[in-house]
Formats: sequence, C-alpha cells, structure tokens
Amino acid sequence: PDAAATQGAQDRNGQLTKPPGALGRLEDLAIWYAGWRGDAQPQITAPQVIVFAGNHGVCAQGVSAFPSEVTMQMVANFEHGGAAINQLSKTFGAKMDVYPLSLDTPTADFTTAPAMTEEEFTRALQTGWNAVDPETDLLVTGEMGIGNTTSAAAVAAAVLGGDAADWTGRGTGVDDAGLARKTDVVGRGLALHATSDPLEALRCLGGRELAAMAGAIAAARHHRIPVILDGFICCAAAAALHKAVDGALDHAVAGHLSAEGAHQRMLDALGKEPLLRLGLRLGEGSGAALAIGVLKGAVACHSGMATFAEAGVSDG
Amino acid sequence: PDAAATQGAQDRNGQLTKPPGALGRLEDLAIWYAGWRGDAQPQITAPQVIVFAGNHGVCAQGVSAFPSEVTMQMVANFEHGGAAINQLSKTFGAKMDVYPLSLDTPTADFTTAPAMTEEEFTRALQTGWNAVDPETDLLVTGEMGIGNTTSAAAVAAAVLGGDAADWTGRGTGVDDAGLARKTDVVGRGLALHATSDPLEALRCLGGRELAAMAGAIAAARHHRIPVILDGFICCAAAAALHKAVDGALDHAVAGHLSAEGAHQRMLDALGKEPLLRLGLRLGEGSGAALAIGVLKGAVACHSGMATFAEAGVSDG
Repeated sequence: PDAAATQGAQDRNGQLTKPPGALGRLEDLAIWYAGWRGDAQPQITAPQVIVFAGNHGVCAQGVSAFPSEVTMQMVANFEHGGAAINQLSKTFGAKMDVYPLSLDTPTADFTTAPAMTEEEFTRALQTGWNAVDPETDLLVTGEMGIGNTTSAAAVAAAVLGGDAADWTGRGTGVDDAGLARKTDVVGRGLALHATSDPLEALRCLGGRELAAMAGAIAAARHHRIPVILDGFICCAAAAALHKAVDGALDHAVAGHLSAEGAHQRMLDALGKEPLLRLGLRLGEGSGAALAIGVLKGAVACHSGMATFAEAGVSDG
Repeated sequence: PDAAATQGAQDRNGQLTKPPGALGRLEDLAIWYAGWRGDAQPQITAPQVIVFAGNHGVCAQGVSAFPSEVTMQMVANFEHGGAAINQLSKTFGAKMDVYPLSLDTPTADFTTAPAMTEEEFTRALQTGWNAVDPETDLLVTGEMGIGNTTSAAAVAAAVLGGDAADWTGRGTGVDDAGLARKTDVVGRGLALHATSDPLEALRCLGGRELAAMAGAIAAARHHRIPVILDGFICCAAAAALHKAVDGALDHAVAGHLSAEGAHQRMLDALGKEPLLRLGLRLGEGSGAALAIGVLKGAVACHSGMATFAEAGVSDG
C-alpha cells in the first residue's frame, strides 16, 4: 500500500464530522482501501466479480450431493442472469464475468493422480490472472464446481496443517455417510500428495477454478486492486498464496463467514475477521459480493463526508 | 404479515437454483419481507431514511462530551449532504428526510421534571407518524441529539427493567468520571419517574427524536413497510412500542449491533439478531442504512433468481 495515501486517509478520517472511531470498522476499511488505491479520498465505481467454474475427477468417489453436470448447467444459469451472484452483482453495481474452465475435461481424481498437470495448472493460473480487468477498483473471485469443497478441504489441510477431519464439511449438503466418505477421500489425497510447497498442493489437490482464483488474487495485488475474499473454497485458494508469499493477502479482506464448518478455522489461519456472518454457504462469490455494499458504504463515508471545518461543527 | 405471500415466498425459495438453505439468513429475510409487503416476489425500490433531531435538558447535568449546539450544527450538515448518513443513503438508493424537532426548546431535565409535556410528546409521535412516506418500501429511522444516549438508557431501564448501570454507556465518548455522572443522572431520573407504562416512560425520560422514531415505526407497521432498526437510541424508542403492544416490532429487523455497551442486552430483550456487527456507534441511522444493502441483496436474490425448472438445472 501507498504510505502517503494511508497517512492522508488517516488524517482525513480524524477530521470528519463524527466522534472519533464512531464508524467502527468502516473507518479501518476506508483507510486500508485508500492505501491500496494510492488515493487518500478514493471512490469505488467499478467493482468486478469473476466466477470461475471447474469440474473435479474426485466426484467419482461420491463426494457430492449433486451430479457434475450441474457445474455446466449453473454456468448457463450465470450466463443467462439467473443465479444468486447475478442478482448480487447487479445490486452492488459490479461487472460480472464467467469463466468455464475445460468443463468437459475434469481434473484427475486426486486419490489416484495429481489433479492437474503442470501445464493445466499454469494455464488455469494464467486464465485467472488475465481475467482481472486492470481498470476495476474492487475484485470478488467466486467459483462453481461440483465437488470443490472436497478439493478445498484437501488444499487447506496440505497448506495450513491439520488432518482431513479438521477441514472436511458438508458442502452443498452431504449426509453423515457422505461426510465420512468425503473425509476418507481427503485423507487419501493428502497421503498420496505429501508436499510442503503450497502451490504444488494447489496443483495436486485443487482444481482449475481454485488455481484461477489464486491467479486473479495475485493479479489484483499487482494492479493494486483490493479484493474481497468469499467463503471456504476461495479462501483455500487464497491460503496457498498466503503460505507461498508472506503478506500475499494484505490487499484482501474476508467478505463473510461461511456456514461451511471449517471456514472459521481457515479465517483464523489467514488472520482475517469476516465482514458478514449471515450463514451463507453457496459459493459463486455470493458472500463477498454482498460485502461490496459494506466496502462501498465505508469508502462513501470516508470520501464524501464533510470535515468539522467544512461543516462548521464543533469537534467537542 | 400476509399469510399467502409468506407461503408463496417460501414455495418460491425452495425452487431457486441453489442448495436448500445455502443463502442462509438472506432466505429468511426475503420471506419475511415478502410477507409484510404482501407480495411473494417483491422488490425494494424506494427505501426511506428519516433522521429526527432533538435537544435534551438533561445536558445541563454534564452527560455528554459534546455541547448541545452540535445538534443544530449536525442538522445543517445533514441538510447540506455532509454527514455519514447522507453518504450511506446515497450509496443504497434511499431518500433521506431530516426533521429538527424544536431544537431551540430542549426537553426538560428529566432529573427534575418529565422530559416532555403530554402535548409535546403527542406532537413528536405525530410528527414521526406523518414523516413516513406511505409509498416507501423499507424504512430506517435515525436520530441526532446531544445527550440522547442518557435518555435512551433511562427509557431502556424503565421499560425493560434492570438498573441505571446496566444501560448507561459512553455514548459519543465520555470518560470514566463522565460515565459515573451519567449513570447517577439516569438513576435519579428513574427514581423520579417510576412508571409501568412504557409510553409514559418514553414521555418522562425520552426525547422528541425518540418519540418521533416510535411514531414512525408504528406508522410503518400500519402501512406494512418493513423497518430496519438502528442502534441503542432507536432500539430504546422501539422497546417502548415492544412493551406497549405484543409483537409491535414484528415488522422490524435489527440492522446492526452498536458498540454502545448495552445494545446487545437491548437486542436480547427485543429478541432481535443484528444483521451487522461492525462496531459502529454513530447513530443517525447509519448502521441500519448500511444494512439496507443486505436487505436489498436478499430480496434481489429471492425475486430475481431462476428456478431449477426455468434454468434447466438438476436439483440433486
């Protein structure tokens, strides 16, 4: 972040017509945003939501309540404007882009082979990097991929430590038997692909949409575009960056706490306090998109409010 | 609420392209909103934010960190578009109205007399009732009034039980000595105006802006306009309605948890779970206005999403 813009924003915050600290976390958000944008009085005018979709070979192990066809069906739903993320993007004035990633060629089943080849992994990272519009001023990365809470749990365990049971949850809604099967699958993946390299873990256990989100989050950093992280799957991808490069997520805030069981543990590991806690567990970037409203409100107050001097208000 | 609209919204919710329950609290909010609007597929297009301002005789007891002149100065700031609530209203597409209530004639100091005469109290209630635009589809009531956390604490204690220390907090930022003084003042008010009638407590211990908020919240109920409650002061006014008439706040949700210490206790007493927890303690309706975004997102998803049948998506 830009030190002069951060300082300028802090100074401005102290002069606005409100008691010190009365806007709570909105004040910290606005100053953080100003620093990353290099502008002490910024505006949010062009948010971008990108939804990456991928299919997962590990679905052959019976880890999801939904069939893999749903990934492609939901991509069509995104393209026709019918999904939750379409409504939220429109509500908060964000441009929304959808990237289906080789849906006819699922990743390999990670219990038997690395999910992606080096080439597939690099291509997904690059697609994510290139999907970020350099002119956007706030980024949300979302995903769709039947089976991807299984991949995300495996990536989280490999990257952040702990065992399969610590990270495996019910996803879109598996029953107890499904949860046990899913936990076993994650454990077998971890045993097969033991590595201390977080990006290698993302390649062997993740999926194309996770890799693409990681690429997009890294690109946003390059362009100084603040990011709102979504739920469990987005944060698993982000965790690989976090472990690979110290401070790699300093330009990101956690949009919400998902109802997926292990998301709180993941946010703790990332050192992020969620903006919203509304029990969402949909993915698509939905929780983060909802948090665009909070960021917009924070920045609008910071940049639009009068100072005590401008308004002729006594400052106590 | 309208039973047919509620049922219609529940049926629709079960057909939308998402796993059951995956939008968490947004689903409950949308169904609740649909019921009150009498429309199973509603939209939010015309929110209204009303800020009522009043002055408090009890300021003579040294209960605030700011002088009473600030109330009028902030009203001017509202009218010129320079306050936090102006920016938030604009961000979330709400019309904003400001009502200064006899600022040159503060209420009586409640440690020596009832804050308002019967006539003053009735006039403030009516002003609040009439301030609600019957065509609005979502209401936020906010306030400005130096000294009004003291009035709100006294009203809360009188209406909800407990003693002065349970409800008295730092407001805009009094120090330890100020807090002790404030608690003593609230205790003296409670001793002087012992009553089991919640509206009489609002008259004797409240203020014009609290009475006006109560009038507006009641009017919204009459017009079937859902309400987002703001922080400690708004909720104190609402608490008087809650105690006066069972279910009087069924058309209202809690917008946020304020940093004012006793707000959690108050929300517990009202049986309301806040939508946001961001440490705001500004008043003006700011926390509730920020929550307009959450309501808009909830209703947009509910009414705009495709059903499984419409989108050709397998429902598991």
